[in-house]
Order: sequence, then structure tokens, then C-alpha cells
Amino acid sequence: MKPVDVRSLRTLVDGRWADVRAKTRDHLNRFEPTDGLETDAHREQVFRRMKSLAASGYAGLAFPAAVGGDDDLGGSVASFEMLAYGDLSLMVKAGVQWGLFGGAIQALGTERHHREYLPAVMSLDLPGCFAMTETGHGSDVQNLRTTALYDPASREFVIYTPDESARKDYIGNAAMHGRMAVVFAQLTTKGEGHGVHAFLVPIRDSAGKTVPGVWIGDCGRKAGLNGVDNGRLKFDHVRVPREALLNRYGDVSPDGDYWSPIQNPSRRFFTMVGTLIRGRISVAGAAGSATKMALAIAIRYGQRRRQFDAPILDFLAHQRKLLPALATTYALHFAQEQLVSTMHDLHAADRVDDHAQRELEARAAGIKAVATEHATTTIQTCRQACGGAGYLSENRLPQLKADTDVFTTFEGDNTVLLQLAAKGLLTSYRDHLGDLDMLGMVRFVADHVMETVIEATATRPLWEGLRDADLTDRVFQLKLFEDRENHLLDGVARRLRRAGKDNAFEVFNAAQDHLLATGRAHIDRIVLEAFVAGMESCPDPEVAALLGKVCDLHVLCTVEADRGWFLEHGRLTPSRSKSVTRLINQLCAELRSSAEILVDGFAIPEAALATPITAD
Amino acid sequence: MKPVDVRSLRTLVDGRWADVRAKTRDHLNRFEPTDGLETDAHREQVFRRMKSLAASGYAGLAFPAAVGGDDDLGGSVASFEMLAYGDLSLMVKAGVQWGLFGGAIQALGTERHHREYLPAVMSLDLPGCFAMTETGHGSDVQNLRTTALYDPASREFVIYTPDESARKDYIGNAAMHGRMAVVFAQLTTKGEGHGVHAFLVPIRDSAGKTVPGVWIGDCGRKAGLNGVDNGRLKFDHVRVPREALLNRYGDVSPDGDYWSPIQNPSRRFFTMVGTLIRGRISVAGAAGSATKMALAIAIRYGQRRRQFDAPILDFLAHQRKLLPALATTYALHFAQEQLVSTMHDLHAADRVDDHAQRELEARAAGIKAVATEHATTTIQTCRQACGGAGYLSENRLPQLKADTDVFTTFEGDNTVLLQLAAKGLLTSYRDHLGDLDMLGMVRFVADHVMETVIEATATRPLWEGLRDADLTDRVFQLKLFEDRENHLLDGVARRLRRAGKDNAFEVFNAAQDHLLATGRAHIDRIVLEAFVAGMESCPDPEVAALLGKVCDLHVLCTVEADRGWFLEHGRLTPSRSKSVTRLINQLCAELRSSAEILVDGFAIPEAALATPITAD
Repeated sequence: MKPVDVRSLRTLVDGRWADVRAKTRDHLNRFEPTDGLETDAHREQVFRRMKSLAASGYAGLAFPAAVGGDDDLGGSVASFEMLAYGDLSLMVKAGVQWGLFGGAIQALGTERHHREYLPAVMSLDLPGCFAMTETGHGSDVQNLRTTALYDPASREFVIYTPDESARKDYIGNAAMHGRMAVVFAQLTTKGEGHGVHAFLVPIRDSAGKTVPGVWIGDCGRKAGLNGVDNGRLKFDHVRVPREALLNRYGDVSPDGDYWSPIQNPSRRFFTMVGTLIRGRISVAGAAGSATKMALAIAIRYGQRRRQFDAPILDFLAHQRKLLPALATTYALHFAQEQLVSTMHDLHAADRVDDHAQRELEARAAGIKAVATEHATTTIQTCRQACGGAGYLSENRLPQLKADTDVFTTFEGDNTVLLQLAAKGLLTSYRDHLGDLDMLGMVRFVADHVMETVIEATATRPLWEGLRDADLTDRVFQLKLFEDRENHLLDGVARRLRRAGKDNAFEVFNAAQDHLLATGRAHIDRIVLEAFVAGMESCPDPEVAALLGKVCDLHVLCTVEADRGWFLEHGRLTPSRSKSVTRLINQLCAELRSSAEILVDGFAIPEAALATPITAD
Repeated sequence: MKPVDVRSLRTLVDGRWADVRAKTRDHLNRFEPTDGLETDAHREQVFRRMKSLAASGYAGLAFPAAVGGDDDLGGSVASFEMLAYGDLSLMVKAGVQWGLFGGAIQALGTERHHREYLPAVMSLDLPGCFAMTETGHGSDVQNLRTTALYDPASREFVIYTPDESARKDYIGNAAMHGRMAVVFAQLTTKGEGHGVHAFLVPIRDSAGKTVPGVWIGDCGRKAGLNGVDNGRLKFDHVRVPREALLNRYGDVSPDGDYWSPIQNPSRRFFTMVGTLIRGRISVAGAAGSATKMALAIAIRYGQRRRQFDAPILDFLAHQRKLLPALATTYALHFAQEQLVSTMHDLHAADRVDDHAQRELEARAAGIKAVATEHATTTIQTCRQACGGAGYLSENRLPQLKADTDVFTTFEGDNTVLLQLAAKGLLTSYRDHLGDLDMLGMVRFVADHVMETVIEATATRPLWEGLRDADLTDRVFQLKLFEDRENHLLDGVARRLRRAGKDNAFEVFNAAQDHLLATGRAHIDRIVLEAFVAGMESCPDPEVAALLGKVCDLHVLCTVEADRGWFLEHGRLTPSRSKSVTRLINQLCAELRSSAEILVDGFAIPEAALATPITAD
């Protein structure tokens, strides 16, 4: 391989929001590393750093110019991604305050809420919570049980927690610092329910004392992220004014009449939830940063550490642990950049494109699932690849592992999200989803998909004539991924079609693994397309050539991991399947000498990587 | 499925050392749960509990009657396994004191060492360390660099750390409590080196003050196991008497002549290291207990937690996460019991059976690797299967995850151990291994294996005629696993044969993944055989029938995970391969209602499972 100029690689990786990334990098270099703080001290430290971030104007990125912000949604997600190179508790707390709490006020509220609250949200004068999840209702948000009953006499909503399962749980900022919460509750007025809506509910006064009627608990110690004060909330008939309803998608008149711009309650719910997409995209990005950091540490260590007379990275088994993960991290990086860009442009366009918005939501769900799973697996592998040294806190991997472990869960459980991505694929437009019961949904998607799929499979190429050289042909790779997705989709649609009135759950459940495989294959295709597009935009031929090899490794490892499927479905012959493994080993050997350049390309702040085991 | 009497299942699971297990269970129930202690407080609590264990006579199990012990090696490992249901820091510290430190004195020392030290080791009056690993030398113990130079003038050994890479690292008991260390160092006398030997070196006086010439560092905070005081040791020409050498396998006369019952230095080294096999077996057992506990929590939660109107364990995707892991945990349980039993009987026989000892070492290495990898993966899955609740410390999964994370590393890195298991397979007797350089080794094993393999593959069955029913036929399953192992072994032997003088490393390295797959297939076969043997010993037909299904699930999931291989090698047709997936889904549905009985069968102390999320 020709030598590569790391600056070109960094420029490509920094991408559209290079300025924002550079600024956040500077900010991070000013913080001392956090080490082994007690829960209380850690929570206070993070809060102080939040104030420092707020003072620097960091929070403005995400908010509209009308309230003093910079109106740069993509930039705000990019900067959030960069925060992951510092203390992940700070990143999550920033995400709660400015992404979830502030983001909900912005997306679900109207101008009066923006004017009244967003400046104080940005400056951190009003620390807040996003109180959606309940103890008994995580993924099934539509059926959460907190109630908001409108009382026309006093023109107030009465917020109430009917039982322990309706208790708000895992709420960031709740245990210590939050003054106000965006509370998701079932709105009822004039005896009629209108589904989940969001309300601004004060939980502490300006002295930090809990407001009467509100009960606040502390989730206590967690696996990681102990600088974030997660808590529990219960409401005993807490009254808030009518204006506390975030009323962009549904409002109640003073005398209690309900009105919404979206008639269909289910569509309304999904539209409301859809506006909160930024959280998922941000977590996917943060997972990417954490993965990059772990890989940078493990690859530098693998280069320096010798066993049996060779650097351990010279061993095939060690390359096999780290290099495919590195390749996929690059692929996901470009997918993430594309996702952020699309979100930013849709938001900036300021005209509603329902179709594009739904596609973005399905992608965000799927990429969040895949990126966070990749983070969990890769950080685990990196810990092990550093042996005993990887278990010491001084080498950062334990904290990275512990902090990111919940990424596969929060902002949507990965299994549920991957299912969502697959369903988004099955229904070309989400509107219909809400209307139909499970049976109807199952029938609808099956009918809808059959037509589009039949055509695709009719033109399927002759897999039989495949040569080794095809495996590293970019066009062939793209076709291979697309074909797998289409075939899986075809199959799952056929299966779901069998559903009758009495067996809807059984039919769905029997096909659940097939549905998840479809979602996964879909995301694999999207990620590969994004990687290819990212490479094509690269002006430096040496960098492009190197990334070409990285892309081959990513593709072949994806194929190898699912080669059971490719063999079962005649896409690979046994001997071609063995070629995949052989080519991967060859690529590992070729890329071994570029491994350090590739992690340098991430441009991780050096302070974040200053661990004893990576020192020269 | 017929209802099962959980007592019969527990009796089978408790096995040969049921009494010891019951006693340790009682002891554990007396300890309060450890929660969120500071490092120092946690270290002190663990040390106090060690004293309580010592006072109860716990430590006697592992030691000979001649010094006041019970001489029940198998029982000591079984009790250690049970300790894993309490605080894992306590378990590891007990393992360091009585397994590693005491075990080394017993196995490598002679009667004078036993008499002088073992009573104080058992009573904890002499807390000690096992100082083998060095900063620069983990898996490559044979080349560690601490020196022990004999000085005939004073009849002393001079222990010396030549540089930072020779610093002893990660040493349990070193940072606070250890008074003495078994130090592994290169013995030199009369200008000649005799390889690694073990020496008893005082590191602190009775007041706890560091001995002159010894430097002790603290490894500080770790991902988990923070109740264990891991530290670092350096020796600046520390003098110990000639008798400090643990001289069972090598001794130095007062005037400096070296003598050993084993002439070949490499064979001597492997014999010495081989006696320490108990540590690996114990870690495999502890990994099993931790896995069982995580599964018990996740399965109880999956039964109680409802989402979208059904217990989450009703969903196929959730069953797929937990039930295959549960099945493999049962398989590994029986493999572990067999391993402990074999070790116990070999030890009790008190006559040296070299062949059996080497086979046991290879098995112990492989099962340790497979069991700890299974623990890491399964505990991770269980955390995720419990969603946000699984991230809270009160629900124990975070501590389980953090504490066990290093199991894949300590007592031998898993990759190195799996390689060891495969090499043990390639060479029918280890003796030759040490003599040969890499080239010789590669040639030798290849030649040796070819003959035995050729015969096995000649009689290979007609895979083409396979029916679905064969997939759940026990004899067929055993054959399938055996055939895969033989085929892999055949292939890797052919590849290693290609090694010439100049390409030994390249040939070895190119085949490393193949070698590891061979080790893995070997352990899969051994584990299945042990599971089948365990079931056959079961007198209760309902329990046996249930375990039969569990065994099917374990086998089919193992096949599914490696179905790429089975397809590539014509062992499965594409349609039979799809049947494997279908049968797994069926088995998941069948076993779903028995999931709680199966975790109850582990007989985990109820105190260990008393978490908020598993409460009824």
C-alpha cells in the first residue's frame, strides 16, 4: 500500500462539520480526566462541566436563531459525538438537557414555549428531564399509564401516577439537578382519551426543594454513567396550567375541547415520537466515538506489546479481532455522517416531507441498533485484546465499556428498533401502521411488499458463475447486499401473509427472527452504500485506495458472518465461501501496517488517548 | 413436557460434591450483600470475610491431611464455584490465597515447605501472593525476566527485577494484605540458567511494613473485583535463603549445584506449570456460576416483565437470546463436573499418569476458554435482556458483568489457551513440544497427526442422506461433532506440514484461525460427551427427558452458529441447514415453559437472587 497522508484522511473523516468538531476537541482538551470519583462528587463535577459548556455557547447549536441559538442541528449532533471522547456521563447529561428536554420543548411545543423556556434551557438556568419511560413501559410508549386529566374549572391538567408500574424510571437529571420535566402522559378531556402528550411539569423549586405532590427517587448506582443522576418520578395529582401542554400536535381549549392537526391518533403519536429522532442519531454517533477510542487504544497497544517475540498485532488471531471491527467502524462512520446530514437538511428545508421523514426514522432506528451493538461487541473485544492492562481503569477501557453498555437499551431497545427498521421497510409509508391492528398490519405489509419484491428477484444474477475477483468488485458487493435484503424481505412477507384472525401473534412471533434478519440486512446495505459514497467523495487517491481495502474487509467480514445464509440460498458455493475467509486473512495482513494510520484518522483528541498502555 | 421435580434436577446438578455445595451455600447466606463500597472499604470487607471463611475451616478442603487439611481437591474447587454466588472479589481473593499461593507451595514445594507454611496459609495468618505475570510477559511465562541468582557464599538467592517490563503485575493480595509471595524467576547458579523456578519471598513484615529491597505498587481501580488488592512488585537484589526455593522439581545444593528429577528444561517447566491446573479449572467453574446467576435473573425477569401485552419471554427473539445460552450453560456444567472429578481422581490416585495429566491440562485450558467466553457473552446478553433495569446495580448484573470480565484473561488468555488445547490435540504427548523449535514442532505434529486422521476420514458417513430426524438423534449428534473435529484437525495438520526453515512463523500464523477453530471443535465434542454422560446418570425419567431437549437445543445452536462450516464441507445441505434453524425455534417454544424450572435447578442461594426485578 502507498503511504497515506493522515491529514487527508482526517479531513475526510471530519466531514461536513469539521469546524464544530475542532471546537469541541479544544473544549475537551481543557477538562482534566475524570477518575474514580464517588457518585455524588462525579454528579457535581459533571454539572459544573455542563455549566462550562453552556457558558461557551455550546448549547446554542441545536436551537433556533429566534431564541438566540445557531440553528445548526447537524452541528449539534456532531459536537455531541465529539463529547463522547471525554467523560461519557457529561455527554449523556448534555444529551438529556439539550437534546431530550430542550429538544422536546422545541419539537413538541410552540412559540410561546420556545420563547419562555429555551433560553434558560440553553444557559442551564433551567435544568430539565425527559420523563417518558415508565417502570412497566419501556418500548411500549403508546401504552404508558401516567394520566393528564384536564380540569376546565381551574383550566389545569392534573398529572397522576396511578400505580408503581406507571412510575417514571431511569430519568436523567431527575435525582438531583432537574427543576422541570417534560412528562409524557395520557391526555383525557371531557371524558375522552386522546393518547400520549407531553407536559411541562415543575419538579423542584428554585431552591432545589421537591415540589408538593411530586415524589422523586434515585436510581442509585449503575454499571456506568454515574455522573448522571438518574431518578424516578411519581405524581400525586400535580396541577399544571393549560399552557403546560406542549401543543404543537394537539391542544386543549380553555373549556376543554381537544384539537389536533393530525386526526388519526396513532399517526399523531408516531409523528410526535418521530420528532425526537435526534436522540437516536446522537446515540449512534456517540457509540461510534466510543468504538473509535477503544480501537485506537487496542491497536496502539497491539503494535507496542510483544509476546512470543512479535508485536501481538502480527498474529492473525489478533488482527482478526481488531481489523474487521475497525473496517466496520469506518463503514458506520460514513453511514452516521450521511444520517446526520439528511436530518440536518430535512430540518433546514423547513417544509414537511413525510416520506423522507419516515425513511429517516427507520434508518435512524436501524443504524442506532447496529452501531450500538457494534460498540458493545468491539469495546468488549478491545478490552480482551489488551489483556490484564485492559482491565485497569487507568487504561480507560473499563469506563468506556461500562458507560456505553446501556447504549443498546436507551433511546429504544435494539431488538425493538431493528424490528422498527424492518417494519418501515415492509410498509412504504408509516401512516397505515397505526390504523391497523396486528392482523391488518401483517396482511397489509405482506400484500404491499409482494409486488415490489417479485420483480427484484426475477432478475437475480447467476450466482453460480461467481469468481473470487467478484468478491472484491464494488458493484457486485452492493448487488450481493441488495439481493440478500430483497430475498429476506420477500420471504418474511410471504410468512406474515399466512396470518389469520386467530393466529396473528403466532405468525408474527414465528417470523420474528426472520424479520430481525431483514432489518439487519437492510441496514447492512444502507451502511455499505454510505461507505461507498463517502469514499467516492475523497479527493486523495492514496486515501481512497486505502479505504477501498477497508471497505473490502468490511464487506467480506459481513458476508463471512452470515455465510450460512449465503450458502443456504445458493449465493455462494462452498468453495467461494472458503475464498471469503481466505481473502479476509489476506486483507488483514495487507492492512496490518496501516492500522495505526487508520485510527489516527479518527482524530481523537490526544488527551483522550493518554493511557499508560499506549505510551511510546 | 411432563412436569419435573426440581429436587431431582438439583440433586443431579449438585452432583458428587453436593455436601460441600450445601455447606458453602449456608456460609454465603450469612454474608450481607456488598453494595457500592469504596475500594479501600471493599478490600477490608473482603479480607474480614476471608478470615471468617478461614475460621470455618473452609480452606482445609484443598490441603493435605498431614498439615491439618481435608485432602478433598475436588471439593475445594466445587466450593470455590459456589463462592461465585457471593461477592466475586471474595472468591478471587480466596482463589489467590488458597488456590494459587497455597497451591503453589503445595505443588511446587516439598514437605518442609508444607509443614512450615501451609497451616498459616489455611488460617490466613500468612496472606500471600502468586507473583508470576510480569508487565511485559503474560502468556509467555517461560520467558519472564525476573532473576534469581544463587550466591553460594551466603547460601542465598538474590531476587532481582532488571527492568520495568520484568515488574510483577496484576498480583492479587500484593497491594495491601500479602506478607509473602511465590515469585517466579529465572534461576541461575554457577553461571548457568535453569529456567523458571518459584521462590518464597517475604514482601511485608508482621506489622505490614514493606520489606527493604521490595517495591510495591497498587494497580488501582479496575473494571471490577475491586475488593481484591491487585498490585505490582519489584525486587532490588532481595536476598532469600536457599530453602526459599520451592524445590520439588529442581533444587540447588548449598555449594550451588543444580539438580532436577526432570532433565529436559522445557518438560520441567511445563510439568511445574501443569501442577497449577487447578486455577484454570476453578475459573471455569466460577464462570459457570456467574453465568447461571445472570440467566436466573434474566429468565425470572423475562417471565414477569410484560411488553405489548405479553411476558417478554413469550417472544421468539427473547427466547433466542436466553434459552440457547441456558442450554449451553447446562452442557458446560456437566463438562465442568467431569473435569473436576477427573482432576480429583488423578490427584487422589497418587501415582503419576503423565498421559492422563496432559490430557487433563489440554481439556482444562480449552474448557476454561470456552466457559469464560460463554460467561462474558451470556452475562452481556442477560444485561441487555433486562433493559434499563439490567443497568442498575441493585439488580446485580452490572457487578456480575464487571467482575467476570477479566475471566477471559486471567489464568491464561483465552486465545492462547484454545491454541494450547489444539496443540495438545496435535501432539499426543506434550513432552516433545518443548524440545522442538517452532519449525520442528510444526513438522512433528503434522506427521504425527496425519496417520490417525486419514483413517477417521475414510469412514465418513454419507451426509447426503440426512433427514431432519437425524438432527435430534444423539448418536448422530456425537458423530457430527466428532467428524467436524477430525476434519479440522486433518486440514490444519496438512497446512502446518508446509512449514520450511524460513517460513515457520508465516505458516503457523496463516493457519492460526484454523488451529483455533480446531481447538473449539474439540472442546465442543468433549462438552457434548460430558453432557450426554451426565444425562445418562440421571435416574429421574422426567428430568432426563427435559435435559434431552436442552441437549438438542445446545447441539443445534452450536451447529447453527457454525453452519457456514457444515455447509462448506457438505455436512449439511442448504435445506437441512434451514431445518436446524426451524428446529431451534421449535425447541425454544417447547422449553419456554420449563425455563424457570431449569434455572431453579441450579440451586443458587436465594439471597444471591434477591433483586428488585426478580421479586414476585
